[in-house]
Amino acid sequence: MTDSRYHVAGMTCGGCARSVELAIREAAPSVTAVTVDLEAGTVTVSGAAEAAVIEQAVDDAGFTFGGRAA
Amino acid sequence: MTDSRYHVAGMTCGGCARSVELAIREAAPSVTAVTVDLEAGTVTVSGAAEAAVIEQAVDDAGFTFGGRAA
Repeated sequence: MTDSRYHVAGMTCGGCARSVELAIREAAPSVTAVTVDLEAGTVTVSGAAEAAVIEQAVDDAGFTFGGRAA
Repeated sequence: MTDSRYHVAGMTCGGCARSVELAIREAAPSVTAVTVDLEAGTVTVSGAAEAAVIEQAVDDAGFTFGGRAA
């Protein structure tokens, strides 16, 4: 299973992190894990998920998707 | 147009507030305004919206719905 890491801007606290995590889990049920790094402004997603689906979920939750992180 | 105010726990910053607002707007398109009071832990909704719809949207966004506020 591959992990994909994305930049997500606008997350500033644990409430934001939880909100982004739930939005991604809702939009991409096959995702097995979502890990938010508030300091780095990244979200790491484990499992099969299209980047476009993640982007839509993040945007819908009120945060800014910044594409794949290294 | 009536305003309805609800208790919502778990919002700690502007990112949370935005996330809750977007979740409510998405779930209840006839809502005309959503105002979050972080200090009070309340969300005021203007326009026609069932409390159950607001509750579901808040819960799905990762926050805790606490019913109608005075």
